[in-house]
Amino acid sequence: MGAAWIAIVTARLSQHDDPVPWLSPKLGQARTMRWLTPEEVDLTLADPKVADPEVVEDPGVADPSMVCPVACIVISGPGGDPTMFEAYWKKMSERSAVTLAGSQSLSYNSDTKNLSWYLEPKLEQEIRRLHAIVSNVAVEEDDHYYIVVGTGSSQLIQAAFYALSQPPDAGDRPTTVVCAAPYYSAYPEITDLVRSRCFKWGGDARSFERDDEPFIELVTTPNNPDGAIREPVVNRPHQGKVVYDLAYYWPHFTPITSPANHDLMLFTISKCTGHAGSRIGWALVRDKEVAKKMIKFVDVSTIGVSKDSQLRAAKILETVSDSCSTAADIENFFVFSRNILKERWNRLRELVKVADLFTLLKYPIQYCRFAKDMADTIPAFGWIESKGEEDCAELLKKHKILGRCGTKFGVGKQFARISLVSKDEEFNLLLQRLSIIQGTDLNH
Amino acid sequence: MGAAWIAIVTARLSQHDDPVPWLSPKLGQARTMRWLTPEEVDLTLADPKVADPEVVEDPGVADPSMVCPVACIVISGPGGDPTMFEAYWKKMSERSAVTLAGSQSLSYNSDTKNLSWYLEPKLEQEIRRLHAIVSNVAVEEDDHYYIVVGTGSSQLIQAAFYALSQPPDAGDRPTTVVCAAPYYSAYPEITDLVRSRCFKWGGDARSFERDDEPFIELVTTPNNPDGAIREPVVNRPHQGKVVYDLAYYWPHFTPITSPANHDLMLFTISKCTGHAGSRIGWALVRDKEVAKKMIKFVDVSTIGVSKDSQLRAAKILETVSDSCSTAADIENFFVFSRNILKERWNRLRELVKVADLFTLLKYPIQYCRFAKDMADTIPAFGWIESKGEEDCAELLKKHKILGRCGTKFGVGKQFARISLVSKDEEFNLLLQRLSIIQGTDLNH
Repeated sequence: MGAAWIAIVTARLSQHDDPVPWLSPKLGQARTMRWLTPEEVDLTLADPKVADPEVVEDPGVADPSMVCPVACIVISGPGGDPTMFEAYWKKMSERSAVTLAGSQSLSYNSDTKNLSWYLEPKLEQEIRRLHAIVSNVAVEEDDHYYIVVGTGSSQLIQAAFYALSQPPDAGDRPTTVVCAAPYYSAYPEITDLVRSRCFKWGGDARSFERDDEPFIELVTTPNNPDGAIREPVVNRPHQGKVVYDLAYYWPHFTPITSPANHDLMLFTISKCTGHAGSRIGWALVRDKEVAKKMIKFVDVSTIGVSKDSQLRAAKILETVSDSCSTAADIENFFVFSRNILKERWNRLRELVKVADLFTLLKYPIQYCRFAKDMADTIPAFGWIESKGEEDCAELLKKHKILGRCGTKFGVGKQFARISLVSKDEEFNLLLQRLSIIQGTDLNH
Repeated sequence: MGAAWIAIVTARLSQHDDPVPWLSPKLGQARTMRWLTPEEVDLTLADPKVADPEVVEDPGVADPSMVCPVACIVISGPGGDPTMFEAYWKKMSERSAVTLAGSQSLSYNSDTKNLSWYLEPKLEQEIRRLHAIVSNVAVEEDDHYYIVVGTGSSQLIQAAFYALSQPPDAGDRPTTVVCAAPYYSAYPEITDLVRSRCFKWGGDARSFERDDEPFIELVTTPNNPDGAIREPVVNRPHQGKVVYDLAYYWPHFTPITSPANHDLMLFTISKCTGHAGSRIGWALVRDKEVAKKMIKFVDVSTIGVSKDSQLRAAKILETVSDSCSTAADIENFFVFSRNILKERWNRLRELVKVADLFTLLKYPIQYCRFAKDMADTIPAFGWIESKGEEDCAELLKKHKILGRCGTKFGVGKQFARISLVSKDEEFNLLLQRLSIIQGTDLNH
């Protein structure tokens, strides 16, 4: 997940005043921008999700008595808010709508005959259908996978740790959880949230050396934050379990080179369709006992998963699958999304290469089974490295861009992650500010 | 939460055969009853939520070659499935419906100005409105409460433990969680799910004697399983924190004697309106730092709470509040629900007093501020004690009633909990079977 850029400026400007000098007139007037009262600024600073809150003096305005903005706060949402996809869903708003009558879904149960008793049958059906259409998982082959739905894939990560860690009678030696750096910045805090005796965070998988210890390796591919295609790095298959986080293994982000067929794979609707607010993730699990334990975790921790969101997710996935048909009367969701993201990447790369301040990774071009054509990886995030040893996130922050610092991903501070799946106006603001850093202000 | 009774009978009966002998004809034909194939029976037995699965020979049919049911499996859902309320919501189905367009609620955020950044403003508004109407919480007075929404109150119980337990630098001495027995049977497994070093289950609060230890006491009032009105029992206020689970403090279950004004109170829509499938609970929290930590827990464990369910819950609560107005054109939800439950309790008490096998608790009659009249507690569960030292749940199971054994609530096996908030046909089946145990078969 990534950062969202929202510039919030203290009042003293009325709506009739000139726009903020350091914003282009267009952006200064964009609807996502608004002036806050000092009380609102205080509230915002007190907000637990404001990352490193800081009031930044606007470099263009030194005199606080001037009738103009005097402070800017850069805030971040939970990161990587996938609002880019809203443009597609606005076109499909009615077609993909669901109506929930007051009398439905009162029970905790959805399907008492299913191992996943809280799983809505319609959602299971649409998950299997979409995987079959995209061919990113071998759901149609002889292999049987159990589907375990969770309140977002965060819950399923914990459920997987619960299912795969040492049994309680193994004493107080927690199973070590590792992931090759740079790793998704939330893994450490998810793992150690309540300081479990069953599992504990062990950091970078490449430096995991204790030979006698059971472990769980997380393999995120394409990787968050850097978009790399990955395989496990700890080479001790008998002692370890592997959890594949395939949140980004969809054709708008990366070529589908082959159907994944691992023992435990995680997906989330947040990254697939953009419906982060619904909190629906799913695991495909080969082993029945592991699936049962994961279901037990979801049972005890939240007694199942919102049926309202499951039913809505089923409708959204159905619409996406329908859109992929050659006979579809609607635009292919993955093609539409890829085109937007591809254009953003092109603009970002163009901008970055003008100056010699930042480096972006390059990704291989491969044959995509879904697109039936060659395609490159275009990650949801830009993973940028500042040349020299400069603190990349600090440099960005001075210019009111919130990047998440490389240290949160287990690597150096010369790296930072920025989100490319925000709304158009936020992405444009990002480019505008990057161009100022590079001395190539787009407005001049 | 309680048990649901579903009798599942193996096939060999076609739909054209006579109904099962030990069911009344009406019940035997009810739509919730169905015959299973042997494969389905296997599936059911493998279901992780089947409590103590057992194939019970039908006492009325000894010869398996007969064309009639030969086995019965008693299964339990997650317990206390509040499907009784469906009758009300069927009448209000359209009025309380919500439509979710495909393009809404894509973001993780709901309201970035709110401490609870994922809380839908409409839900907060309807929660406060309903508490004010029912006057079960002092929300309108000077006291300010933060509202923290969770994926059911199960998640909020963990969030409260996380927020109230010792800080990580306190070493490996977890804060002890206690509750006076009989306590809600899920508390121990929720507390010890991943064997946290921050908190651990300590059992019955009445036998908690370590003077030097920090603790958290859970006070459920009215209590699950026994409906008792409770206060804390550990008398060391400086060392302990109290979490009030007020899931049942609503006027269909108990008289509202005064507005609760504790530091941390938990509620859930499952018990208030019956919408268990939506997984929406809320905490009212007085201390801002505690609220922030609880929000942090929900952030890390599930990145907020389904917006779809929050929006639906807001609509449901709005309907309930509307129904309480003296000018309402719809039936008062609490009056309607209380009448059904009151009639069930009357029938149950009538039945039990005929024989001398079971005892039910009696509850005081008090003035209810909501009803503006005297009212008694009529719990969602029957907490029954078998006379003598007999294993109550075992006795019930022999007659195909699934009660949850007293030992799961921290007391003796002469007690068992049965749910009174199931659908009509299930409740009728329960009474029918109880009457057989008592030798007072309703059919004779």
